[in-house]
Amino acid sequence: MVGGGQLARMTAAAAVGLGVTFRVLAGSESESAALVTHDVAVGSHLSLADLSKFASECDVITFDHEHVPAGHLAAIEAAGALVRPGPGALKYAQDKLAMRRRLAELAAPMPRFAPVSSVADVIEFSRAGRVVDDWPVVLKAISGGYDGKGVWIVDSADQAAEVVTAAAAHGTALMAEEFIPFRRELAAQVARSACGQGAAYPVVETVQVDGICREVIAPAPGIREDLAVEAQELALRIASALDVVGMLAVELFETPRGILVNELAMRPHNSGHWSIEGACTSQFEQHLRAVLDLPLGSPAPVVPGGYTVMANLLGGIDPDVYDRYIHVMAADPAVKVHYYGKGVRPGRKIGHVTVVGTPADSVESLRERARRAASYLRWGTEDGDYAA
Amino acid sequence: MVGGGQLARMTAAAAVGLGVTFRVLAGSESESAALVTHDVAVGSHLSLADLSKFASECDVITFDHEHVPAGHLAAIEAAGALVRPGPGALKYAQDKLAMRRRLAELAAPMPRFAPVSSVADVIEFSRAGRVVDDWPVVLKAISGGYDGKGVWIVDSADQAAEVVTAAAAHGTALMAEEFIPFRRELAAQVARSACGQGAAYPVVETVQVDGICREVIAPAPGIREDLAVEAQELALRIASALDVVGMLAVELFETPRGILVNELAMRPHNSGHWSIEGACTSQFEQHLRAVLDLPLGSPAPVVPGGYTVMANLLGGIDPDVYDRYIHVMAADPAVKVHYYGKGVRPGRKIGHVTVVGTPADSVESLRERARRAASYLRWGTEDGDYAA
Repeated sequence: MVGGGQLARMTAAAAVGLGVTFRVLAGSESESAALVTHDVAVGSHLSLADLSKFASECDVITFDHEHVPAGHLAAIEAAGALVRPGPGALKYAQDKLAMRRRLAELAAPMPRFAPVSSVADVIEFSRAGRVVDDWPVVLKAISGGYDGKGVWIVDSADQAAEVVTAAAAHGTALMAEEFIPFRRELAAQVARSACGQGAAYPVVETVQVDGICREVIAPAPGIREDLAVEAQELALRIASALDVVGMLAVELFETPRGILVNELAMRPHNSGHWSIEGACTSQFEQHLRAVLDLPLGSPAPVVPGGYTVMANLLGGIDPDVYDRYIHVMAADPAVKVHYYGKGVRPGRKIGHVTVVGTPADSVESLRERARRAASYLRWGTEDGDYAA
Repeated sequence: MVGGGQLARMTAAAAVGLGVTFRVLAGSESESAALVTHDVAVGSHLSLADLSKFASECDVITFDHEHVPAGHLAAIEAAGALVRPGPGALKYAQDKLAMRRRLAELAAPMPRFAPVSSVADVIEFSRAGRVVDDWPVVLKAISGGYDGKGVWIVDSADQAAEVVTAAAAHGTALMAEEFIPFRRELAAQVARSACGQGAAYPVVETVQVDGICREVIAPAPGIREDLAVEAQELALRIASALDVVGMLAVELFETPRGILVNELAMRPHNSGHWSIEGACTSQFEQHLRAVLDLPLGSPAPVVPGGYTVMANLLGGIDPDVYDRYIHVMAADPAVKVHYYGKGVRPGRKIGHVTVVGTPADSVESLRERARRAASYLRWGTEDGDYAA
């Protein structure tokens, strides 16, 4: 697996059970996955030499992020590596405009979109064929971003001008998307194996704060059965059409007019961390099974009729996170804490907690327990009690 | 953790989630745990130098087996290492006669026992104060054993003579125990933390064939509530009296006259592998929490009212086990396979499978699924279908 972050770390743990030899290409010995993986290669995912050497030592190559340059992916594949998902699929996770255009061909429901290169383009996009501007508009970097951001919501032509100017200065191409006043955000995760077998996880609700996922509830409470099936079928159709091999997360908006595709991720995803405890087969084991072309595991919840709630742990101001363990573990012996071994920085994802419920537990009681655990673990920050 | 077997391997996986730094002292780089652990020290658990060096690099020392010499344990503890469980507890896992004598002080229910050093001693033991011999009698090596065995069931004075003679030749001290015609075997697992907190897992049924655990059913089907509580209380009492820190497995006979203690193990144990998927907190995470003096996790089943069945995978004659994956995974996507990365030898434990049921699943249907998976994975052996 290329990338040494927490996704690779949790995949390493899944590989232990499967008994397959797992290696990571990490940027340094201190990255999250490098701390726990037996076979660590240190190198850059931006270096073709490092990637080629790593690929030559593996049977199958997969990824914990989308940041390997497309040319490098093509080169290692041409040299004989089994790259899963392949460059032909990954380009849709790397290029948001290509993704939108491909989804349009598939008639997938999604927001209006258009490439933009000037304020005039953004204003025209906002009008949608009418005569007056209609704000806000969502601007996105087509690939990557800068200053840690790739999405901007602009409320006026002036704000649009700021983003267009800054993006041009960074050489970043932009696209515009319709702002969707959604009811809530959902995610549909599916796996697709190399030979084309598919498996769909229950559709989950994701709760985002300031663009960061804070909480996932599996399955999405009260979701209409037909909508859930539509989301699962859509995700399976996208996985097949884009030739994804491995896990695919389709982030969705739930709106009065139905579901709309927001983003795609072709790897294990934050919206699936609940599956480690909550599903028969975790997304990490499933990703390995898919890229190794093994039959897929059951994505069903372990507890039929029960909810699982996952809350992310964000770094606070105190670097010592372990002294919080005693509070959380003593307060709720059934909560499961995952630390990623990452250095603490305010707002950085350093772990997550999961609570698996039974049919007797209300969603709100499970959310309360997950939030309380996450809140304890973040003690000492201004945002310590984010349940408030 | 001293020892590089599958117990250390599964503990390594549990350490990933906790975010604690886990090291093993393994006999070689190819041992089960050494294959997946980031920090591997290669050395012998029989070497005080190797143990001392390893201990000096760890905050807490624990074990995946009972084979570290008592003198070495005392020496590293005297040198300042935190040894958990400590030598004072481990001696009862290393010396079966000391264990019986200590349990007798605690008035724990158990078979009659006595040290024996001659055939006359064995005959006298068999008579139990009466005038005629009464066979069979169980003979056990007080510590260790030879030729891979430590327990013999003898049916006559002649058979006893053979064992006594061979044991003397190996310098192995023997004890005799009453042969118990049990209904079934049970195991009560508890954790005890350094500060004395206790947690009791559901009492399980263990199915042994030729002295090897083949199957574990959690909880033990149809066990009387009062008997289960008695077994849990007994295990907690033993853990406390013997100052065990970590997991304690109390292997029990269920008989018409109640439960009797068979053996003790002070580490994660085969009878608790079901807990990885079937309990809120796996025995491996629990062992780490106990020896790190963290609050203990919930030992409750994840699915209230459901059974979990674990079946061991024993090596067959074909060394390539991975080509069986496709059959098992395709046949039953909800079965969970664990391979230990060990070389295949006929009869060697090379992995296990677990099936977590819901209240709608009968025990027999779950056992059938676990056996079928284990049988597939053993394909090609005389004993391939051990369900028969």
